Amino acid sequence: MPSLRIALCQVDVIVGALDTNVDLVLEAARTAEDQRCDIAVFPELTIPGYPPEDLVYKRRFVEENRIAAEKVAAASQGCALIFGFLDADDTYDSTYPPTVYNAAAICADGQIKGVYRKHALPNYDVFDEKRYYTPGTEYPLWTIAGTTIGVSICEDMWIDDGPIPIMADGGAQMIINLNASPYHQTKVEARNAIMSKRIAETNTPLAYVNLVGAQDELVFDGGSVVRDADDRLVARAGRFVEHVHVADFAVTDPKPITLPVIDVTTRPSVSVVGLPPVLEPELEPLEEIWQALVLGARDYVKNNGFTDVCFGLSGGIDSAVTAAIAADALGPEHVHAVMMPSRFSSDHSVTDSEKLAQNLGINSRTIAIEPAHHAFLEMLAPSVGSEPLGLTEENLQSRIRGVTLMALANRFGWLVLTTGNKSELAVGYSTLYGDTAGAYAVIKDVWKLQVYDLASHYNHRAGREIIPEAILKKAPSAELRPDQRDDQSLPPYEELDPILIELVEHNRTPSELIEAGFDSETTLRLARLIDIAEFKRRQSPLGTRVTKRAFGRDRRMPITNAYRGTTTRRGDIG
Amino acid sequence: MPSLRIALCQVDVIVGALDTNVDLVLEAARTAEDQRCDIAVFPELTIPGYPPEDLVYKRRFVEENRIAAEKVAAASQGCALIFGFLDADDTYDSTYPPTVYNAAAICADGQIKGVYRKHALPNYDVFDEKRYYTPGTEYPLWTIAGTTIGVSICEDMWIDDGPIPIMADGGAQMIINLNASPYHQTKVEARNAIMSKRIAETNTPLAYVNLVGAQDELVFDGGSVVRDADDRLVARAGRFVEHVHVADFAVTDPKPITLPVIDVTTRPSVSVVGLPPVLEPELEPLEEIWQALVLGARDYVKNNGFTDVCFGLSGGIDSAVTAAIAADALGPEHVHAVMMPSRFSSDHSVTDSEKLAQNLGINSRTIAIEPAHHAFLEMLAPSVGSEPLGLTEENLQSRIRGVTLMALANRFGWLVLTTGNKSELAVGYSTLYGDTAGAYAVIKDVWKLQVYDLASHYNHRAGREIIPEAILKKAPSAELRPDQRDDQSLPPYEELDPILIELVEHNRTPSELIEAGFDSETTLRLARLIDIAEFKRRQSPLGTRVTKRAFGRDRRMPITNAYRGTTTRRGDIG
Repeated sequence: MPSLRIALCQVDVIVGALDTNVDLVLEAARTAEDQRCDIAVFPELTIPGYPPEDLVYKRRFVEENRIAAEKVAAASQGCALIFGFLDADDTYDSTYPPTVYNAAAICADGQIKGVYRKHALPNYDVFDEKRYYTPGTEYPLWTIAGTTIGVSICEDMWIDDGPIPIMADGGAQMIINLNASPYHQTKVEARNAIMSKRIAETNTPLAYVNLVGAQDELVFDGGSVVRDADDRLVARAGRFVEHVHVADFAVTDPKPITLPVIDVTTRPSVSVVGLPPVLEPELEPLEEIWQALVLGARDYVKNNGFTDVCFGLSGGIDSAVTAAIAADALGPEHVHAVMMPSRFSSDHSVTDSEKLAQNLGINSRTIAIEPAHHAFLEMLAPSVGSEPLGLTEENLQSRIRGVTLMALANRFGWLVLTTGNKSELAVGYSTLYGDTAGAYAVIKDVWKLQVYDLASHYNHRAGREIIPEAILKKAPSAELRPDQRDDQSLPPYEELDPILIELVEHNRTPSELIEAGFDSETTLRLARLIDIAEFKRRQSPLGTRVTKRAFGRDRRMPITNAYRGTTTRRGDIG
Repeated sequence: MPSLRIALCQVDVIVGALDTNVDLVLEAARTAEDQRCDIAVFPELTIPGYPPEDLVYKRRFVEENRIAAEKVAAASQGCALIFGFLDADDTYDSTYPPTVYNAAAICADGQIKGVYRKHALPNYDVFDEKRYYTPGTEYPLWTIAGTTIGVSICEDMWIDDGPIPIMADGGAQMIINLNASPYHQTKVEARNAIMSKRIAETNTPLAYVNLVGAQDELVFDGGSVVRDADDRLVARAGRFVEHVHVADFAVTDPKPITLPVIDVTTRPSVSVVGLPPVLEPELEPLEEIWQALVLGARDYVKNNGFTDVCFGLSGGIDSAVTAAIAADALGPEHVHAVMMPSRFSSDHSVTDSEKLAQNLGINSRTIAIEPAHHAFLEMLAPSVGSEPLGLTEENLQSRIRGVTLMALANRFGWLVLTTGNKSELAVGYSTLYGDTAGAYAVIKDVWKLQVYDLASHYNHRAGREIIPEAILKKAPSAELRPDQRDDQSLPPYEELDPILIELVEHNRTPSELIEAGFDSETTLRLARLIDIAEFKRRQSPLGTRVTKRAFGRDRRMPITNAYRGTTTRRGDIG
């Protein structure tokens, strides 16, 4: 049975970093060559990084990306290199928007031997590929080390009757799929299911190579695999780590070839199948989320030129989990926690925070906000009178903390992290320019109940109480007025989160939920809060996406929106 | 020669306001019926509003939009009503994303007689229609008052070999085009050119109906027209105003019909051609921008449930122009200017501001920020030491002003306007959570030099110096340190704006501009500032789009972006 040796090259490229990305590819290519691989496969849009967004509209960027691709090709040897780049030609300027393809270059012996252009362009969820790319229309095959191969890109695998069955029918003995597949919970299961479906259709082995690293709110989890023609896993690379994973595997016997074929390499394969497959371990669900959040925060901070972060440590669960993630991501010596007690803060807020900071080994300092609190009340009195200010005063304290953190960040060159969770972000239980002030929102896509689960998981994994039990057990409170608790303003999170998930992630209207038996008053109130908070969310920082529907690129709701979803008149749409 | 009477119904519908939108349509329909019109035409997506964004993913919303469309149809009489709605059928749930069409309902005598589904779906600039809609594939014609008519929607008119020539060839004696065409400078010229092109191709008259009103950053300018088969303008509705504009006009003689035809109405037309066409006046370029900014601000404030606004009045040109626009948009009694002098403010800042407030008749108050300024320096001293704080202290003052405005807004239920211009927003010459704090950025898409032009235009139009000449003439300064002027940090705006326009609106890289002769040091510095400011812009408020490339939906650049565009290596992309 013919076989091949492949290098699954999970590289952490950065959007726009053409030179650095070339270096990463060349280094992995050398590893592959050293191990006498037949093929080294890289992620989708390796050279420009993914997603390059409107950089695609800069002609000079696309030109330089081409030069970078040619530089990689020039260094290629007997091992075929397959990597992603932006393909364009003289037609670039002939239309608006310009004509560009999301493509893969197939290189060897110093040359680009040919190019595959992605057929299926996703334009939903976080994807805008129809904004940028023209779909490919051709199905070339490639001869590498004596084997006929079909190359495809990401979404090409997800559509029925797409390039993969066509290439397999046309003679491909194996399929390669280049990916920049953003992580969310249960994504691995969805990928496994679609790979199994394609293999069952085609009886052809599949090598799936995924990007690793984070780009703004997206995190890419790696986990590249090879599955054989019987859908057995014969290679699995690690998750959330850069790695060049080398595997030997069997391809199908040669088939009649009915598609055009381009010769890439002629060097015979050294692959010997029968070596035990190297399968890096799968991750438990909470550990998977944890690693996504750590990598998301690390790459955002690092790739934006920062080393150190600061944030407000309140004594609550959200800032505790944020602190632990930041310490994992950047090293505790780069993490600066600021305790900012007000006249309404409880003693345990400071003592619990100090204990956590000590356990994590992060820096901490205390700046009481009373002077500014007092000064603002004095400044505002002629305008607002001397009555209690209520919510205005609660927001004021939160904003004083935001200003304090920003001053420290400006002075020391730190990046400010925010600590809000998805439940708060959904209902706007936050102060704009206060606790939402910062460059990255570490747990913004984690529902409150899951924040607790992550804290317990973290302590459990460590085998000790790094996040003090007192923080896990206390009633959630913003401490912006005497004896405040979240459950005075909101239902308990056990009731809140399931309703929010239906409204936010499943596109349900309040009427639909009430019809399904949810509490009417609560549901209506939450739905309205979600709508009103849209303008806050639009001014809140990015954060790592870990669900199928995050606030951000994923959920594009108008701010000006008069739809309440409260009518029970239901009709057919057809 | 056969003729028709048409009502061009420029209504200001609101996204999601199904019931209100139905009422607006029915009211206009009654006007059309009263004037014995043959056809009343409404804008694209009249019922849901435009753009409904991810509301399209809510099944219940699409169902209720259908019920609303049927309610309009039920009230239709002898005048055919043609309006936009979201068309879906049982296949809605069969794919992800759901199958929905951007469609027009053609109604009369109490019934929907048929539906046209938009063919051409724009997915560039501010448009994401391929995210939501499936393209139509059919070319039905409609018999209305004895005339055969082709109905098309917006982008259908902009593509070559599209529905319009096909329908004209297939027998249409006139073409109707429903639009939600967002305004930007020179857009009218582009529309006129494309209409002339289609009429020249088809020798068929064209009725173009456009939405009026604003939705988040988009403003729709109306200006609906009818052009006859010789491309003569026979009707033009006003710009930026709601209006039902009724016109008589000649259609072409009947042609051989080769497309399917649906009978809509049989009532003969009362139209008598020969009446003089009513052409509302065109607008001078600066007046056009002014009206766009006024309508943009008014609809944002009003449609989000606010009546009153506040903002910081600094004595500079930006806040002066913002104040004048707000007074035009909402009435001076709803506009609250806040002067917030610091230890570094000049006397003229307050006196000029007071004079402007008096001239405009808006409310004003003064809150000196010294108490909070002093308090923060005291709070921060243990962390940052006693040396001068430089930029940190400048930002601190700006943020204290932001907190002050937000406290007033929270207390009195006002909406905070920001006053920054496009030049500042481009280079990040602003303080996040300081002068960028607010819900709507009135002049965010106006370059600084144009802000001066608008101020002069406003005074000229009024015939008196409403904005004091002193404000127009003083050197721009943020007044955040002693004797500060913008030109200490930035080149003069005469040099700055042209470079920024190339970099931001024309997708040029610094190398390209330097090759073209721009100053190297300035260009490189500005390009870097633009990139770094992306994270600030992402947290800044929406504002009215008046250029072809605004910051916002229009220009989707990654925050994490290592591309500098500084290499002069240029290659072919093909």
